[in-house]
Amino acid sequence: MANFCSDNVAGAAPEILQALVEANAGPAAAYGEDAITDRLESRFCEVFETDCKVFPVATGTAANVLCLAAMTPPFGAIYCHRDAHINVDECGAPELYTGGAKLVPLPGEDGRLTAGQLSEVLADSGAGVVHHVQPAAISLTQATEAGTVYRPADVAAIAEVARAHGLGLHMDGARFANALDFLAASPAEATWKAGVDALAFGATKNGCLCAEAVVVFKPELAATLGYRRKRGGHLFSKMRFLSAQLEAYLKDGLWLSLARHANAMAGTMATGLSTVPGAGLVHPVEANEIFARLPRSLREGLHARGFEFYDWPAAGADAVRLVTAFDTRPEDVEAFLAAARELAGPAVAESA
Amino acid sequence: MANFCSDNVAGAAPEILQALVEANAGPAAAYGEDAITDRLESRFCEVFETDCKVFPVATGTAANVLCLAAMTPPFGAIYCHRDAHINVDECGAPELYTGGAKLVPLPGEDGRLTAGQLSEVLADSGAGVVHHVQPAAISLTQATEAGTVYRPADVAAIAEVARAHGLGLHMDGARFANALDFLAASPAEATWKAGVDALAFGATKNGCLCAEAVVVFKPELAATLGYRRKRGGHLFSKMRFLSAQLEAYLKDGLWLSLARHANAMAGTMATGLSTVPGAGLVHPVEANEIFARLPRSLREGLHARGFEFYDWPAAGADAVRLVTAFDTRPEDVEAFLAAARELAGPAVAESA
Amino acid sequence: MANFCSDNVAGAAPEILQALVEANAGPAAAYGEDAITDRLESRFCEVFETDCKVFPVATGTAANVLCLAAMTPPFGAIYCHRDAHINVDECGAPELYTGGAKLVPLPGEDGRLTAGQLSEVLADSGAGVVHHVQPAAISLTQATEAGTVYRPADVAAIAEVARAHGLGLHMDGARFANALDFLAASPAEATWKAGVDALAFGATKNGCLCAEAVVVFKPELAATLGYRRKRGGHLFSKMRFLSAQLEAYLKDGLWLSLARHANAMAGTMATGLSTVPGAGLVHPVEANEIFARLPRSLREGLHARGFEFYDWPAAGADAVRLVTAFDTRPEDVEAFLAAARELAGPAVAESA
Amino acid sequence: MANFCSDNVAGAAPEILQALVEANAGPAAAYGEDAITDRLESRFCEVFETDCKVFPVATGTAANVLCLAAMTPPFGAIYCHRDAHINVDECGAPELYTGGAKLVPLPGEDGRLTAGQLSEVLADSGAGVVHHVQPAAISLTQATEAGTVYRPADVAAIAEVARAHGLGLHMDGARFANALDFLAASPAEATWKAGVDALAFGATKNGCLCAEAVVVFKPELAATLGYRRKRGGHLFSKMRFLSAQLEAYLKDGLWLSLARHANAMAGTMATGLSTVPGAGLVHPVEANEIFARLPRSLREGLHARGFEFYDWPAAGADAVRLVTAFDTRPEDVEAFLAAARELAGPAVAESA
Repeated sequence: MANFCSDNVAGAAPEILQALVEANAGPAAAYGEDAITDRLESRFCEVFETDCKVFPVATGTAANVLCLAAMTPPFGAIYCHRDAHINVDECGAPELYTGGAKLVPLPGEDGRLTAGQLSEVLADSGAGVVHHVQPAAISLTQATEAGTVYRPADVAAIAEVARAHGLGLHMDGARFANALDFLAASPAEATWKAGVDALAFGATKNGCLCAEAVVVFKPELAATLGYRRKRGGHLFSKMRFLSAQLEAYLKDGLWLSLARHANAMAGTMATGLSTVPGAGLVHPVEANEIFARLPRSLREGLHARGFEFYDWPAAGADAVRLVTAFDTRPEDVEAFLAAARELAGPAVAESA
Repeated sequence: MANFCSDNVAGAAPEILQALVEANAGPAAAYGEDAITDRLESRFCEVFETDCKVFPVATGTAANVLCLAAMTPPFGAIYCHRDAHINVDECGAPELYTGGAKLVPLPGEDGRLTAGQLSEVLADSGAGVVHHVQPAAISLTQATEAGTVYRPADVAAIAEVARAHGLGLHMDGARFANALDFLAASPAEATWKAGVDALAFGATKNGCLCAEAVVVFKPELAATLGYRRKRGGHLFSKMRFLSAQLEAYLKDGLWLSLARHANAMAGTMATGLSTVPGAGLVHPVEANEIFARLPRSLREGLHARGFEFYDWPAAGADAVRLVTAFDTRPEDVEAFLAAARELAGPAVAESA
Repeated sequence: MANFCSDNVAGAAPEILQALVEANAGPAAAYGEDAITDRLESRFCEVFETDCKVFPVATGTAANVLCLAAMTPPFGAIYCHRDAHINVDECGAPELYTGGAKLVPLPGEDGRLTAGQLSEVLADSGAGVVHHVQPAAISLTQATEAGTVYRPADVAAIAEVARAHGLGLHMDGARFANALDFLAASPAEATWKAGVDALAFGATKNGCLCAEAVVVFKPELAATLGYRRKRGGHLFSKMRFLSAQLEAYLKDGLWLSLARHANAMAGTMATGLSTVPGAGLVHPVEANEIFARLPRSLREGLHARGFEFYDWPAAGADAVRLVTAFDTRPEDVEAFLAAARELAGPAVAESA
Repeated sequence: MANFCSDNVAGAAPEILQALVEANAGPAAAYGEDAITDRLESRFCEVFETDCKVFPVATGTAANVLCLAAMTPPFGAIYCHRDAHINVDECGAPELYTGGAKLVPLPGEDGRLTAGQLSEVLADSGAGVVHHVQPAAISLTQATEAGTVYRPADVAAIAEVARAHGLGLHMDGARFANALDFLAASPAEATWKAGVDALAFGATKNGCLCAEAVVVFKPELAATLGYRRKRGGHLFSKMRFLSAQLEAYLKDGLWLSLARHANAMAGTMATGLSTVPGAGLVHPVEANEIFARLPRSLREGLHARGFEFYDWPAAGADAVRLVTAFDTRPEDVEAFLAAARELAGPAVAESA
């Protein structure tokens, strides 16, 4: 049955599983000294068209908080959207890894922060005053928790504010491939060229079993990361199995193909919902998440027919979240839409 | 070529990989709400013949430090062997996860602590005095870092000391299956029946890609573990892929078969070395690690012929460590021994 | 010249200094084993009419964060007003002492949280869900950062919410004596009888040199405090000098007399400002802080004449903060008011 | 009655108390913006004949751990004597303030580490290997916990090792004045000229009520200290009362006079004990602590007569610790010695 709860309910892409099988041949040095891991960093450098340092880990939370820990002292402040995963869905992991830094949650339409807002907040941030935590980093989610995407120009404007105040710029790229597909920008344009210092490069949601990478564009930030990763328990002994996932993910643009499909499915869903009486979008659909308003009868009817998705009251009284993935089947989207239309009935009251 | 550097250089057992492929079918709820994870805890309860709580993670360090964090306040002291993995090979992970507890490293022959020693140390531990960190936990490694194995009676005696002083008892079971095979004891006898409160159940070294489990025998210790795991970045979104490894590992005694083979290979190696002139054992060989003394010429000759293993000066001037694994081939052990004998030359001075 | 910057600019009351001199006679056991400290806890028990545990420290930040650490796990959430001292003026001390808990800043008129608001927030707090930090404590400031005072009934209503959700209730009593004077309530009524679990009992601002106390009404919260205080570096070797301040502070109601004076001076100031054309109050004046609106010309004129006080833009464009203390001289208040009236000129345009 | 338990049982020198009284006149800016604090740093610069940064705090633990936190990352290792105060008497404060660094306890005769020993330990420290905590700092106590004193040449040799490995050098100067008096060296010679990076300058034990200072000789180490002090709850609002103690302490060489007296009393005690049959010294007496062996009957007799001191089994079966202070009365030392001689009886067996 169709499951739109999360891209985390998807399994792994066959190419990724196949890479695990291949990586299994023969002995390999442990803890990242193997051949696959060795060539992985070069591969990332090619993909991002720059020298970067790469630290594979298995979870997005790990990737995020290692980035943040590298750029934030224990008495630091990290500015993020109030709905940011790091703020609400990581059970305090950033605080653990930074040694107690403070996340400063900010509002922002459609899940986005803006340069103007940050500039204003930072003008009154208490920098240099010992009573206050010290501004240290800005964190952006790409695509955002609202399913929208920062344009490179948005990121660049925020990066300029970050630089002006001596802050690091972190990007939580849990759905980075989906964002890239929407932007039709290069990985470089979406990150370091726009001023991103460290990226939590997500791969799990988009077809891996468990693979993410800390990608560091500012070399000095990398100095402590190896220790921090190990200390967090995130250095894999049989690292080849993490690296093999990432290698296959990047090979021949697989990652972008997978994201393209997920985004296309989300587009179909969004377009389709516009024809369902009573339904509407909460946020623009720019990646693979749809935040929609569905009347209660419609939500209940769809749940009753076995469609799986989350009601999402945080986005409004009637809101739901629908997430598509690399393996979402067009027929499941169509079935959902057909059921929605049927449950909604004819759009009698056009005036609504 | 034969690689005896570590059981971490081994890949994954075919059954484990196959389980991943099978787990990949269809959507599954994320973050451990899936069917495989659901039945995994029951499986552990059967294997350990008791109600226990199970938290799959991907690394041994994570498993260890989550156990320790559950039983140690920030101002606590953890007593361990000075060579313990938690003390020397985890880059301070226990300190991170406990919020700054102190590891108290103790000496101990063949990698083992004793009840008598701990009793003496704890008699003078400063319990109840605010100036001193407070005794909170004892940590044992099974099999030990010296390749030896605690007998259940040893563990029980230590557990009695722990109980008398109100301490938790943690077992780092990175090579738990190897220890069990040696002991010919049941999992229950080797753990909770002997007084172990929480076990870091190792599976990666013995045939998984990346799978360990925190197994908690004292229910109250489990209360905070879910939060601590998430906060450490160790809760997998696609948890089924961790759980599937563990399920296959436990199925039909696979874990014990794999360990039996590794131990048998270690036994062959140890026995064989006893016939190599100039060679000798540093510690009794009870699991799948051999700590041996090999004269420098012998070590160099073996390295030159392509045998991979670590010189281990911490165990003595001429010491080496040889580790066998579930997939170690008998012919590689034989080749190693043959080369060693050849390099050692005839045992001229039999009197030595 | 008159200084209304803070009650921290005041020195110490003569009785407190005298107590130091007297405490200096002869040797005394260190680290709180002295006679003065010994009898201090009994004294607090009398004053608060209950068994309580008392831990003297030297700063309000220390007192606050020790309380919070005793009731909050590292993965906990602490609900507080967004202007709370613990949130904005302690450079992340709560995060340090709790091991990385998260402060959840909430809005609230006149510096106060309400039971209704907290009830609503806690209904959606993610309790029991591993992705989210877990509700652990509510922190109230008494008197608040806006110079207002919680009524015992307000506190009791909030305490009921806290209990219903299993949270601890902390009171930052940096200006506790000032609040008590306003309430004309007993220490017991304002704290444990209203449901407060732990009080940071302030004394420094109200006439001590450096003396505060953690006062714990819930015995189980006291168990770890001795260790946490020592570990924070807040256990004084010559403890008698802290305890002597507190003893003198409590003797013969000195603390309440001092606060009464400070409050009376604030009342005079507030009343006087109401007669100054263009001036107005931002918050009700209930303790010893006045938040007022003064036109820029008035502010500048007063500064130019040497009156010291802070412009307080956080409370509005024209806002200032004036703080009175136990030693504020009536003639200084009068001088300030006279100058203000003179600078404001006759209230020509009554319509304004 | 004579109390030789600790220099912490002494009160405050009259000059120090008088300085508090004087500092109390009039308002003063809070949090270290006052005039006394302002001139204090200059005073330290004069005393130490160099530019240094000074952060007054109230406890030795705070001073120590702030120094260590400034020079040690969370994944760092701090090398210290196994009897060091930071290792055994601060309830894990270094771990709290560093975010979980590891103290590596080392043996050492008479309480001292040596350059040779440290050089050897650091040669095998795992620097650069992610599995191991990274060497970050060496901590020396001056005078040591054994009552001995490092010569400037000893410190310089250790500093050279520290520099060679990129480590910071911390000095716990809880009894720094006593050490200086013994050395007849200048403050500069005993610290930065010998390579010390940061000093926990003790004053409490030697005549203050509660005053210590972090003195930083390497400017870059000072950058984070203001935040760390505040975050630890160690920034005093009425800072003038800390600074006034330190100012009076340094004035006209008071600190050295006080220490000279304490040392002289210790010398008298040590010399006297040499004439007591059966008594002997455990360590050379170089400052104001005497570690002596006294037969049980002697110890019990002295306790019975009301002399207060600690039996010190850590230093040997019959060991005691006697500490003199700035206010120790010669007649109390003489009384102690007289009683000891009387209790010991005539030295019948001179051959012993």
